[in-house]
Amino acid sequence: MNHQTHESLRLTEQVSELLVVRASGHENDNQRDYPNWELPNHELQRLLKVGIGGVILFGGSCTEIQRRCHRLNQWAIKPLLLCADIEEGVGQRFKGGTWLVPPMALAQLYLKEPQRAMALAKKYGECIGMQAKLCGLNWVLGPVCDVNSNPRNPVINVRAWGEDPQTVSKLVSAFQQGLASEGVLSCAKHFPGHGDTEIDSHLDLPLLGQDIQQLELCELIPFEAAIEAGVNSVMTAHVLLKQIDPKYPATLSKKIISSLLRQKLNFQGLVVTDALVMEAITKSYSSGEAAVLAFAAGADLILMPQNPDEAIKAICHALTSKKIPMERLEQALNRRRKALRKLQSFECKVSSKTASINHNGIESEQSSQLAEELVRLSLQIRNPGTLQTQKEAINLIRVDDVLPCQVLSQNAPALQLPTEAGYSTVLCHKLSITPWEKRPDGSLNLNRIGIGPVLIQLFIRGNPFVGNSNSMEPWLETIEQLQNQQRLAGLVVYGNPYLWLELSRCLDPNIPAAYSPGQMQEAQSQVLTNLLEDKIFDKDSQVEPWKQFTD
Amino acid sequence: MNHQTHESLRLTEQVSELLVVRASGHENDNQRDYPNWELPNHELQRLLKVGIGGVILFGGSCTEIQRRCHRLNQWAIKPLLLCADIEEGVGQRFKGGTWLVPPMALAQLYLKEPQRAMALAKKYGECIGMQAKLCGLNWVLGPVCDVNSNPRNPVINVRAWGEDPQTVSKLVSAFQQGLASEGVLSCAKHFPGHGDTEIDSHLDLPLLGQDIQQLELCELIPFEAAIEAGVNSVMTAHVLLKQIDPKYPATLSKKIISSLLRQKLNFQGLVVTDALVMEAITKSYSSGEAAVLAFAAGADLILMPQNPDEAIKAICHALTSKKIPMERLEQALNRRRKALRKLQSFECKVSSKTASINHNGIESEQSSQLAEELVRLSLQIRNPGTLQTQKEAINLIRVDDVLPCQVLSQNAPALQLPTEAGYSTVLCHKLSITPWEKRPDGSLNLNRIGIGPVLIQLFIRGNPFVGNSNSMEPWLETIEQLQNQQRLAGLVVYGNPYLWLELSRCLDPNIPAAYSPGQMQEAQSQVLTNLLEDKIFDKDSQVEPWKQFTD
Repeated sequence: MNHQTHESLRLTEQVSELLVVRASGHENDNQRDYPNWELPNHELQRLLKVGIGGVILFGGSCTEIQRRCHRLNQWAIKPLLLCADIEEGVGQRFKGGTWLVPPMALAQLYLKEPQRAMALAKKYGECIGMQAKLCGLNWVLGPVCDVNSNPRNPVINVRAWGEDPQTVSKLVSAFQQGLASEGVLSCAKHFPGHGDTEIDSHLDLPLLGQDIQQLELCELIPFEAAIEAGVNSVMTAHVLLKQIDPKYPATLSKKIISSLLRQKLNFQGLVVTDALVMEAITKSYSSGEAAVLAFAAGADLILMPQNPDEAIKAICHALTSKKIPMERLEQALNRRRKALRKLQSFECKVSSKTASINHNGIESEQSSQLAEELVRLSLQIRNPGTLQTQKEAINLIRVDDVLPCQVLSQNAPALQLPTEAGYSTVLCHKLSITPWEKRPDGSLNLNRIGIGPVLIQLFIRGNPFVGNSNSMEPWLETIEQLQNQQRLAGLVVYGNPYLWLELSRCLDPNIPAAYSPGQMQEAQSQVLTNLLEDKIFDKDSQVEPWKQFTD
Repeated sequence: MNHQTHESLRLTEQVSELLVVRASGHENDNQRDYPNWELPNHELQRLLKVGIGGVILFGGSCTEIQRRCHRLNQWAIKPLLLCADIEEGVGQRFKGGTWLVPPMALAQLYLKEPQRAMALAKKYGECIGMQAKLCGLNWVLGPVCDVNSNPRNPVINVRAWGEDPQTVSKLVSAFQQGLASEGVLSCAKHFPGHGDTEIDSHLDLPLLGQDIQQLELCELIPFEAAIEAGVNSVMTAHVLLKQIDPKYPATLSKKIISSLLRQKLNFQGLVVTDALVMEAITKSYSSGEAAVLAFAAGADLILMPQNPDEAIKAICHALTSKKIPMERLEQALNRRRKALRKLQSFECKVSSKTASINHNGIESEQSSQLAEELVRLSLQIRNPGTLQTQKEAINLIRVDDVLPCQVLSQNAPALQLPTEAGYSTVLCHKLSITPWEKRPDGSLNLNRIGIGPVLIQLFIRGNPFVGNSNSMEPWLETIEQLQNQQRLAGLVVYGNPYLWLELSRCLDPNIPAAYSPGQMQEAQSQVLTNLLEDKIFDKDSQVEPWKQFTD
């Protein structure tokens, strides 16, 4: 091997170190949920041998993630950064872990009881950190530092720690403390703020009008607080700030990353891009272009380029052709090494703590109590104990997806408890027969639903990839329609507080109703136990919707 | 501790050894799919310390099952029998494993190419045996030896290796050979035959009219063949043979187990009950009663008693009060020990084979090729290449369940391929808005479905707990209705061959249509690639059903 080749291999390996690629949390290729986005094992193995330095995991259970992290570390030739989007608890992504209420719930508590909210935010971080570590992950892609200043934000929404910069700052600092105490790295996102947009950057590039002065009054404050609290990395947003850099979105913008984040905010840690496969980027840039622009702008780690090989090649070429100075590479590699050293020092400190895993799996008693407490503190219940048990009543549930459904299983309380009270479940989702009359009249087609009173349970929150299609569903009109016909048995909103606000305003004050920021089964159980009457309907006489015309 | 107590503890431990309890394949209690049926970990640990000798696993991925089996063995004080209902491949129950076409597909092949079918049945057994072993399981609850002589059988159906005793015998023998070669125990079920019934014993007790002579001409033949081929255990059926034992169902019947199976068929291996929690038993007997009766009748292993502690206590009491002779216990324990010794001898023979697991998970290239080949050989396609790509066309899919859906994921070919050809998916299931006009007029409510031509994909097969509700859906009338309106784009039946036969008879011969015994994604992919035209519809102009009235 001649010197030239050796040099070039070394450069490839160094550049590879800066990439974070996506893998399924499942062990077998045939289990991948998104085979187009998740590399098959032989590709992962190859890239890890090339020297890829990070993997982001999606899907699977905690048991599977543990195995997976172990395997990835075996395949890799260098220490890996292993991360996941578990900003609301490991159980948000990985079965068996604890799924906590979204941060916005704590923001609401903060307005009444700031000390308690901060103490809980710290525990929230501890819970995530501990379980992430038990899974083998060492880098949590949280906290969200966006200020949800726009109630119509389709992708941040309840994921934010508040609607004003002070609340967000206080809570993310507390969260950061908790997370750090468990020995995993954190990530403040999405710089310089993704809160004030009505567009989901998974689908298109949002444009923002703020200048630096305006950002300083709002968006930047929580990032400054997170940096102050020791956050280890910052993730850039795919948003275009036209007053600051009219050409490049933040992820690719030197003005945002180098001038604003590095110089003005004096951030010394790792800067990571948001996923480069998102439409906001891929609509305008190839894998190589996006990676080179982000790296040149000051990003240290390149997350989920559409084509990792192209990204590596393009960055290498930019370096050898001196379009990007070699110092940029040294800088990025040094920051990554520093983060890894930090992890090692963590490990020495906290190893005793995590050694005490019991045989009941990853969720400690403490964690499940925290999850329960957070649900309890965040519930809003109207007219408890008045949801009637009755024949022919309908339990109309609206979820985003059923293949799979994250919030419901066959035995979920949202189904089980109303069923025990005599309700028949009708489940609406993207692929179901539409429950609506032809729009724009905005009313429910009641023939399709059934003849009895209707309990409506809406699982709607800001979720990536869903965009604004949720807000187009005429739930307000439906509430009015059912109330006019005296057929509204009750209403529950799980998730979006703005939707709850809108619907609850027009609600007859005697209707049993509830709001829970959390959508998990614990929330369903608390909501319905609170709402339902005690007496249990005779199970034998209930009608199942599918069977109702076939017996 | 006095002698008395020691004796009684020893008896409890010995009796416990005969029990097989149910556990979730998931590691964490909060992940159990059926918390009412699946013991929490602290209970499992307690019972394994008492001396429980077997566990049946449900749910989870292969990765999770591996971990779980390891953990259960750690908790146990004696070698365990670890089993699962994986008669159609490990992937039928556990994600990541291979899911094979149901046995009836091979019976259809056997009628044309008996040697090939037998060779494939052997590979079928090998595939299951190898993957079960890799998971840590040592006892496969198969082959099904029932002769599906009644096409209306709601629970055996495609699970059977044929409709006549000779076909079933040949194929189960070949299967048994394959399974045994991989070093796991097998189980012939459901003795003396569950093929000739229209009732699902999960829901009620089926009554059968055969006498011994009639059984000898049909039902018993495959069991004799399986015994001859070396099957290690036989599972009893919850069916009442009124000519043979008018009082007790086979599971509890001395006449069936001791006289027929042991004496007449001279079976020396383990006899295990079917799950005692099934309604056929629990409707009439308590946990203790059922366990004592089954044990007295000659069953060696007691599967899934509703209350394991009661079952142990009741059997102990029956033994100490001499209602059941101690020899019965010795006999059962000896047979279990013999089976475990057999496993040990297996382990020596096959260890070299299983040592070569690669890093791509549990499914070998060979297994996925077998799965693919079996699908290909079992397909029936009418008018290939003629399923048109068109605007406003509807892909109407009918599945049993969506929470979860075993056969569909977001990217399943049954959704994806028609979507690429311009179809909008409408998914019908137990909890969806009913697609029917009011019965008994038996027609589809076309307003609910949409305005274009309709491709119908039916996922219907004999499945436990579903009963006959499938057969009540008016698909025949629907086919006629859509044909009359020239709106039937195509028809696919995945599963039940009798339904396919019925529907295909009234089908216009020019309609693209297909039948696949298998429901897995490989089957969907082969069916639709065969049926669809080549040209791909312009994706941008397609209408999603959920959005169609809301844009």
